[in-house]
Amino acid sequence: MQVHPVLIAGQWRESAAQGTFQAEDPAEQRTIDDLYPMSSWADADAALAAAAAAADEMRLLEPARIAAFLEAYAARIEARKSELVEMANRETALPKSPRLADNELPRTSNQLRLAAAAAREGSWALPTIDTNLDIRSLHAAIGPVCIFGPNNFPLAFNAISGGDFAAAVAAGNPVIALGHPCHPNTTRLLAEEASAAACQTGMPAAAVQLLYRLSYADGERLVADPRIAAVAYTGGRASGLKLKTCADRVGKPIYLELSSINPVVILPGALAERSAKIADEFTTSCLSGTGQFCTNPGFLLLLRGPLTDAFITAVVERFRSAPVGTLLSRGVCESLARGVASLRSAGAELLVGDADGGGRGYSRSNTLLRATGDAFLRSPADMQSEAFGNASLIVVADDIAQAARVLRHFEGNLTGTIYSESRGGEETEYAAIAAQLRPRVGRLLDDKMPTGVAVSTAMNHGGPYPATGHPGFTSVGIPASLRRFSMLQCFDNVRQSRLPAALRDRNPGGGTWRLVDGQWTTGDVKPRNS
Amino acid sequence: MQVHPVLIAGQWRESAAQGTFQAEDPAEQRTIDDLYPMSSWADADAALAAAAAAADEMRLLEPARIAAFLEAYAARIEARKSELVEMANRETALPKSPRLADNELPRTSNQLRLAAAAAREGSWALPTIDTNLDIRSLHAAIGPVCIFGPNNFPLAFNAISGGDFAAAVAAGNPVIALGHPCHPNTTRLLAEEASAAACQTGMPAAAVQLLYRLSYADGERLVADPRIAAVAYTGGRASGLKLKTCADRVGKPIYLELSSINPVVILPGALAERSAKIADEFTTSCLSGTGQFCTNPGFLLLLRGPLTDAFITAVVERFRSAPVGTLLSRGVCESLARGVASLRSAGAELLVGDADGGGRGYSRSNTLLRATGDAFLRSPADMQSEAFGNASLIVVADDIAQAARVLRHFEGNLTGTIYSESRGGEETEYAAIAAQLRPRVGRLLDDKMPTGVAVSTAMNHGGPYPATGHPGFTSVGIPASLRRFSMLQCFDNVRQSRLPAALRDRNPGGGTWRLVDGQWTTGDVKPRNS
Repeated sequence: MQVHPVLIAGQWRESAAQGTFQAEDPAEQRTIDDLYPMSSWADADAALAAAAAAADEMRLLEPARIAAFLEAYAARIEARKSELVEMANRETALPKSPRLADNELPRTSNQLRLAAAAAREGSWALPTIDTNLDIRSLHAAIGPVCIFGPNNFPLAFNAISGGDFAAAVAAGNPVIALGHPCHPNTTRLLAEEASAAACQTGMPAAAVQLLYRLSYADGERLVADPRIAAVAYTGGRASGLKLKTCADRVGKPIYLELSSINPVVILPGALAERSAKIADEFTTSCLSGTGQFCTNPGFLLLLRGPLTDAFITAVVERFRSAPVGTLLSRGVCESLARGVASLRSAGAELLVGDADGGGRGYSRSNTLLRATGDAFLRSPADMQSEAFGNASLIVVADDIAQAARVLRHFEGNLTGTIYSESRGGEETEYAAIAAQLRPRVGRLLDDKMPTGVAVSTAMNHGGPYPATGHPGFTSVGIPASLRRFSMLQCFDNVRQSRLPAALRDRNPGGGTWRLVDGQWTTGDVKPRNS
Repeated sequence: MQVHPVLIAGQWRESAAQGTFQAEDPAEQRTIDDLYPMSSWADADAALAAAAAAADEMRLLEPARIAAFLEAYAARIEARKSELVEMANRETALPKSPRLADNELPRTSNQLRLAAAAAREGSWALPTIDTNLDIRSLHAAIGPVCIFGPNNFPLAFNAISGGDFAAAVAAGNPVIALGHPCHPNTTRLLAEEASAAACQTGMPAAAVQLLYRLSYADGERLVADPRIAAVAYTGGRASGLKLKTCADRVGKPIYLELSSINPVVILPGALAERSAKIADEFTTSCLSGTGQFCTNPGFLLLLRGPLTDAFITAVVERFRSAPVGTLLSRGVCESLARGVASLRSAGAELLVGDADGGGRGYSRSNTLLRATGDAFLRSPADMQSEAFGNASLIVVADDIAQAARVLRHFEGNLTGTIYSESRGGEETEYAAIAAQLRPRVGRLLDDKMPTGVAVSTAMNHGGPYPATGHPGFTSVGIPASLRRFSMLQCFDNVRQSRLPAALRDRNPGGGTWRLVDGQWTTGDVKPRNS
């Protein structure tokens, strides 16, 4: 059987492989035929050389060209929809509909188009002009970006088509994508379209490159290579932190999205008001995608009280009766079992689940655990073990003060959620909880489960360490996500004709928002008298 | 003699010292009497506990309160001007006038007032509202910030009064300042005013704290402590990188300003046009502050040609005849000698200088070195050794292509400068140089020396590693510098009354710029129908 080629410098070329690997269908638990290369350093080196050259070319490109590429790519993804959905389903067992066909694929093309619009429009770069001193600045391309994609969004977070990809390219950078080894066929289909779109729109040959897999050592070497300007990684914590160490050592920005258990706090007033509705919402949020969302609510905090046990019972029933989904891979299945075991050995009591199987292929029964606030406070670190998948821990605190103490021990998380009585009868309790939760999470929600990350200008899919590597950045949400892949460039006394278009007196296209003398405007700058 | 107390939790209290130290007058080369404590970990621990409590209080403060503090502090600095100038001069030998009294002190109070205005006005936080989805976000206080100040700006970059301090406080954070050990008396005077201003304006007791000095080990422990949310450091590269390692290991943002040699390229057309003027500008820029500015032009790149040798001779004459300034300290004097020795051993030829003394106290004669482009390309790393002080290296390249090759080897720098013929006759050459320089520097200048860093909205005092630790941030320039000390906070479906004022439908004060549905506006948001 032939080994699939890699995409380097605009060519699909035979990999200088040091081995091969194959994907597995997690529902059938059967290996998929195609052979993919585990690249040797020679592939990475060739991609790096080509990326460095492409970065120089891309710095001179009109943003409109980059936008055209992203839009052509979006259209090509849509044109190949059925094949992509079929393949992604086969490699991840995520449902074809609505998940892949109706949510994730449209999200992917939408995100590429939003990034295209941001690139064309230019406001993402926060162009800033001080007319008095003739100092001007903006965020500009940083250089080649290396992206490691996760397994749980084979399209919308794929290293070659997802949010990081769209942001890095829209900011003007070439990308070296490292596919996730569990879905190489899906990644290949996407890369074929990316490559064709790049060709069709006249992008530099190496604007988009793909390696399917590298050894850990070569991955670390890639991240540290001086030809890479920035890195994005979404995935497990241990691997991410290894790459972070390599990037940090050479002073390179690395944007991580690691683990998050997304605490949800339900105050008694909310339970009194709408217990069944919340039990439904919680169950749906916990089990959709078989619990494999980054913002899956893995931790539920309740207060001891008359309604609490009934609520828990209701959730347990829902977990027991809900269908059991297939997990993304054998690895996820095993790590879920380990995560639940950690929680149990930390003192959590099993309410339901923690059994192998129950669904098609790799699966584990829907799992709920329970612990007291005291038990949590005895081992707060272990009680925050992530059990990625369809398992959640419920902690019942004695009172609001203990609940606040529980949250005070929390690591950084992507989201934090508070349900409260709807007519404002729990403001004191809300404030006590929010005071602890707010500084520890990227996104705070009221009365709404955290799954479902809208691509909105105001979205923050980020949070304090170890949810991410820097609490000031978001990986979802355009235009902010583009700025991760930029450097701040200032022009001091630089002649008009030499300035980037976005910083010249005349507003390029007339629609770019610029901060001129402290005021945001889409207008032109009056030429200086001097 | 009594040991000066430290400022912890709003009190000047006796330090749990593990030793003492004294400043030295570098012009007189004589120890200054006052004894200062080298704090033990107990002091740091007490400051950390107080800072954590202050951070919780400050999150609830009105921005106007913080602004009032910064403004009161600015006024108190001005009221104590003569004493501050006297003391800073004594501890650093920087001239009283114009440097300290007319430039640096006004810059310090101005910067505090600009930060106050930014805090009050709120636009720095980039409040962003998506009305359709009711998702809202802004940059908010990150938590306690630890600031290490440098020696070369005892007022305007002092850990307790400088740009980092103003930015961190304006963003809503308490500060633990680590004074530079060479000017503790100046730092004490500033801290007295900071503390009095905090008291006068009702700030939390531990909003501003000061330790004069820690052991290296305790400094590293402080940076890694979970009660510190972010770190700012300006100073030598080796110490800065040690702190960075500690911060990186625990996933904490650290903003560094390390070394920079600030390459200046002068094209032949500029020399033909205004050789003497440029020789004056270059000499002034190199020798002002005895070359001890972060943006000091330590590297001059010329092209071989008929006017080049004459220009170099003219600069040598100016260096020889210019008065020799006093260096900041014995340490700076020694490191300057080492830096010049590195350049000489890398193959640079001495044109003038490199002799001990020549000025009052710690001083070394104004120094110029020269090397060919070939010599540079043989040892590009050594040829970029920083000789912090009144010394610069001139590299003469064979032609524009070799000059571009020289720049291609450059590390990240704060600034890069190009002088060219004023009527546009050197655009091709400019483009070849700018293509290499632009991605390697934070600020690019035309026809203007890089010293003099205006506090402008558009300023970037930053640059790629190792000039700083992240190329997306600036330490000078308000409002951008505030965002370093923030986390991105998103509010999803959160009730109006629970939102920060800047995110409510009604624009707070009516003047805050907010990105509402993709458009910047100072208007209110129409209440939703739902």
